[in-house]
Amino acid sequence: MTVVTKKEYESLTEEKAILYAKRLELFPKDAELECREIGDGNLNYVFHIKELESGKGIILKQALPYAKVVGESWPLTLKRALIEAKALQKHGEFAVGLVPKVYAVDEELAITVMEDLSHLTIAREGLIRLEAYPKLASHIGEYLAQTLFHTSDFALHPFEKKKLVSEFSNPELCKITEDLIFTDPFFDHETNDFEPSLREAVAAIWSNEPLKLEVAKLKKSFLTEAEALLHGDLHTGSIFASETETKVIDPEFAFYGPVGFDVGLFLANLIVQTITRDGEQREVILHHIAETWDVFSAEFSKLWDTKAVESYKDTKGFKAYVLEKVFQDTLGFAGCELIRRTIGLAHVKDLDGIEDGEKRTVSKKQALLLGEVFILKRREINSIQAVIELLEELHK
Amino acid sequence: MTVVTKKEYESLTEEKAILYAKRLELFPKDAELECREIGDGNLNYVFHIKELESGKGIILKQALPYAKVVGESWPLTLKRALIEAKALQKHGEFAVGLVPKVYAVDEELAITVMEDLSHLTIAREGLIRLEAYPKLASHIGEYLAQTLFHTSDFALHPFEKKKLVSEFSNPELCKITEDLIFTDPFFDHETNDFEPSLREAVAAIWSNEPLKLEVAKLKKSFLTEAEALLHGDLHTGSIFASETETKVIDPEFAFYGPVGFDVGLFLANLIVQTITRDGEQREVILHHIAETWDVFSAEFSKLWDTKAVESYKDTKGFKAYVLEKVFQDTLGFAGCELIRRTIGLAHVKDLDGIEDGEKRTVSKKQALLLGEVFILKRREINSIQAVIELLEELHK
Repeated sequence: MTVVTKKEYESLTEEKAILYAKRLELFPKDAELECREIGDGNLNYVFHIKELESGKGIILKQALPYAKVVGESWPLTLKRALIEAKALQKHGEFAVGLVPKVYAVDEELAITVMEDLSHLTIAREGLIRLEAYPKLASHIGEYLAQTLFHTSDFALHPFEKKKLVSEFSNPELCKITEDLIFTDPFFDHETNDFEPSLREAVAAIWSNEPLKLEVAKLKKSFLTEAEALLHGDLHTGSIFASETETKVIDPEFAFYGPVGFDVGLFLANLIVQTITRDGEQREVILHHIAETWDVFSAEFSKLWDTKAVESYKDTKGFKAYVLEKVFQDTLGFAGCELIRRTIGLAHVKDLDGIEDGEKRTVSKKQALLLGEVFILKRREINSIQAVIELLEELHK
Repeated sequence: MTVVTKKEYESLTEEKAILYAKRLELFPKDAELECREIGDGNLNYVFHIKELESGKGIILKQALPYAKVVGESWPLTLKRALIEAKALQKHGEFAVGLVPKVYAVDEELAITVMEDLSHLTIAREGLIRLEAYPKLASHIGEYLAQTLFHTSDFALHPFEKKKLVSEFSNPELCKITEDLIFTDPFFDHETNDFEPSLREAVAAIWSNEPLKLEVAKLKKSFLTEAEALLHGDLHTGSIFASETETKVIDPEFAFYGPVGFDVGLFLANLIVQTITRDGEQREVILHHIAETWDVFSAEFSKLWDTKAVESYKDTKGFKAYVLEKVFQDTLGFAGCELIRRTIGLAHVKDLDGIEDGEKRTVSKKQALLLGEVFILKRREINSIQAVIELLEELHK
């Protein structure tokens, strides 16, 4: 007699993860497996399972039904695991080699089994250590163009696009972004977190009505504009890199939103690096910034010319209009990211890790200032070269 | 023994409609009922069922699984009946008394049973006959403000809004609009339909690249901007009216889109009337146009002030920005509607019914010209008064 029971969610241990992996038959039957939990345990378990003999590994990622933030425990939908797995698969169709391969998806247990990337480094960590990633910018430019073009109305039949919009409806994770990027940092909200030396600069932001008006517009865009299937959280902590490889991970915030949001988040996290660096090391990052946009826009443009299905694709000025909108949105969203990473709930090690208190304050003030300028002047800063000049200006 | 069988779709006849109504117990058990099919039979059956003694009636609307257009039969999703019923209910929560009451919804048979409105006239028919509808503009202004504000991010928790976006995903009906309003009329497409005397004007549209660029932007907005739950087809043929009452019907095109689309379609269909009228009768419609916008914007503004849940609602300039965007979108979408109703697949009787051939051509050319001006100049025409002046200009 076979008794079929619906699997119920339970969180794995290292031992159970090994048993789970064995059942998937991704390793030889008699393989000796080793398992280590390597996640930060805030949102997910990340089990690294390795066959001792061959050294081959897999990653088994399991979403936890809560998030530990500021000591509290927030309940958090397990559906995000499925969103993440599906986004990896969908983006992987187009950004070939730039996202981890998915071997198995388990909706009930909120598990995704995927390619082992433990030979790579999280880009943020490497960048802070001044490691060189000569391919990072061109790979991310390519990733952005491929994923965002191919999931947009320009590439898809409207039935397919609207199906994906519903499939990737992601209210709970979007709410986190709506609050932590677009709202809380611009109001005196309890989730904010900044050092006393920034109080004056922060108060100036809270009372800057023209700035808040522009952020309100950007938030409206985030809430309403279903342009493409975004990664949704594309900072340098969501990227594995080496000198030759780049893999974008963790798209649990994926949803249909404005194209410039992904581009802007990545650029903002590079911009943070320019603030902390000097001389030649700084030039490297400025080059990354320009290259990311140049590769993205050239690649997007090429895809448009060769693959767009939109009837108006050859209408004079339409492609330029779309790219210009993406550029302006990019700057605005980058500005929001710079500000929230400095005074909001979730900081970045690039800035918080600066040991000298005075230098840290100066750097954070620069991040805030740049954020404000990008948000307020996004329609006037009309090329990536102008962005670079602005960043160079700041360092004189 | 009870045998439960899943109901399968079958189209009703007048006899079956009476049996169906009896089962719903909306009439006394022994009531003598009379039934007439009063639809145009293109997309739906509309059965008017009346109790002979009391004269009380109901409407039973059943979607057909195909659309008869230009002699052909297009398959068409039955899901539209559910979308329509749910939109009537959702809009009815806010625009109280301005949409028919829904008594029953039958998903399998694609049937909605609703309030009998047979004492009212379809506004388009009445307007063509110069009937007076002194409440039409203020009622529709109110309807637009209530339905569009209350289903937007300004009024709803983001979870609720995103749930509605998925629930009202309506790809097949949206595709009809995407093609017939935003695409086909601007290209030499086989669905277009216009008289030879317009060929030159039409060719000028097809080769007007600046115009097509602006239509491409409007189409992109229609495809991507999920601002509010629209009616989606708010022309004067979707409105029942009398001197005192107004009821908006037929929201089968409902979906989450840009607010200005509903406002624009209604205004375009009034504008068509201004083209066909003279003197005082023309003034009546000009007054309707101004009043619709004035009531809509005043009411939307009041709802914003008293009910908005958005953190930025009091940020200086945000409400004005939102209303300005709606106004520009309104003009753009109105322009598209004017053009497609003149040279596209689906015409309006207001223009086609003009018997004098020369006058008809002149009127249609005016509709095309106005459409072009609204699309191209929508950022410069900055008040409803400017729209009225433009319409008066045309008639000098």
